[in-house]
Amino acid sequence: MIAGKFSITTARPMEMIDITAMVSDRLRQACITQGTCTLFNPHTTAGLTINEGADPDVQQDIISGLQKIVPMAYPFKHAEGNSPAHIMASLTGSALTILIEDGQLVLGTWQRIFFCEFDGPRPRTVLWRILVCT
Amino acid sequence: MIAGKFSITTARPMEMIDITAMVSDRLRQACITQGTCTLFNPHTTAGLTINEGADPDVQQDIISGLQKIVPMAYPFKHAEGNSPAHIMASLTGSALTILIEDGQLVLGTWQRIFFCEFDGPRPRTVLWRILVCT
Amino acid sequence: MIAGKFSITTARPMEMIDITAMVSDRLRQACITQGTCTLFNPHTTAGLTINEGADPDVQQDIISGLQKIVPMAYPFKHAEGNSPAHIMASLTGSALTILIEDGQLVLGTWQRIFFCEFDGPRPRTVLWRILVCT
Repeated sequence: MIAGKFSITTARPMEMIDITAMVSDRLRQACITQGTCTLFNPHTTAGLTINEGADPDVQQDIISGLQKIVPMAYPFKHAEGNSPAHIMASLTGSALTILIEDGQLVLGTWQRIFFCEFDGPRPRTVLWRILVCT
Repeated sequence: MIAGKFSITTARPMEMIDITAMVSDRLRQACITQGTCTLFNPHTTAGLTINEGADPDVQQDIISGLQKIVPMAYPFKHAEGNSPAHIMASLTGSALTILIEDGQLVLGTWQRIFFCEFDGPRPRTVLWRILVCT
Repeated sequence: MIAGKFSITTARPMEMIDITAMVSDRLRQACITQGTCTLFNPHTTAGLTINEGADPDVQQDIISGLQKIVPMAYPFKHAEGNSPAHIMASLTGSALTILIEDGQLVLGTWQRIFFCEFDGPRPRTVLWRILVCT
């Protein structure tokens, strides 16, 4: 399989979940040597990002930072009350493309791939597709 | 055709224009079963994003939120006076990659693709290219 | 070669370095007519963005704007003290995909590709891979 999806369940209103192992497991099963892997988040109150995974304080600081950056008390019009989560989704982005070299995801020393929950807890899905270089 | 461009005309200083139908029309004509579609915005005061399309209040809240997040009165140096729009362009991003499965764009239930005008009204262009999986 | 990496050295704590010529040099050597070029930044305190290159004041305003947008004095937990740079990395993004048509990178009139240093000066690397359309 060079495409598919996997499920995750978030536990808190906002959190960053490390999905690197889930992505590299799919890549290993696909037996692709060179190419790219595109991840796609089909939700409008969540995002995908790559950032430091070694110190969990970084993930906490990114969430605290986003809560400071995005106005939480602004008189938003959307009745569901989760407009800050929609804004965070557009700031972090819905899709990520990662390079594959020698059968491995190419990530920097400190980099991990994160699913960002901005309006949880909820069950969530991440879609992926590998494009193969011939 | 698996690549091309389409034109849009924005009507306001800031607005989000739903371009999903324009993208899926091109995809239908291309008759591609599996692959990816990359959209590229060649402008420096506009962006591309995927977010909720069902309630137009969400689009309005994203624009209001960006106007709160990006300082509009900061003493910027760029003489043209549209530095906030350049900053919003880098926050939302110039390119988007969307998955194609079974001949369809894969989008979540509430997701639509938006061209984000940050310095309009202007005529604008969106470029696209499909990469086919064999 | 349709994949590789190149090195850059940043000189300041925060700066935007125009890497367009480095990318188009690689593309010229690759002799690819149609496809996409994905750039990937393997660092967690830096980003990649496309924005205006004609007036250097725009780059300065984007940096000043990010310093206003991201709280610099918030009591962050990460002991290294560079949490604002990690947040900026997630706001600008780790990867960029650019279209290739007729052997050229497709960029708008004012667009240039920038490596964004948020925690320099440091030696940095940018990875790239071209996907060819057949």
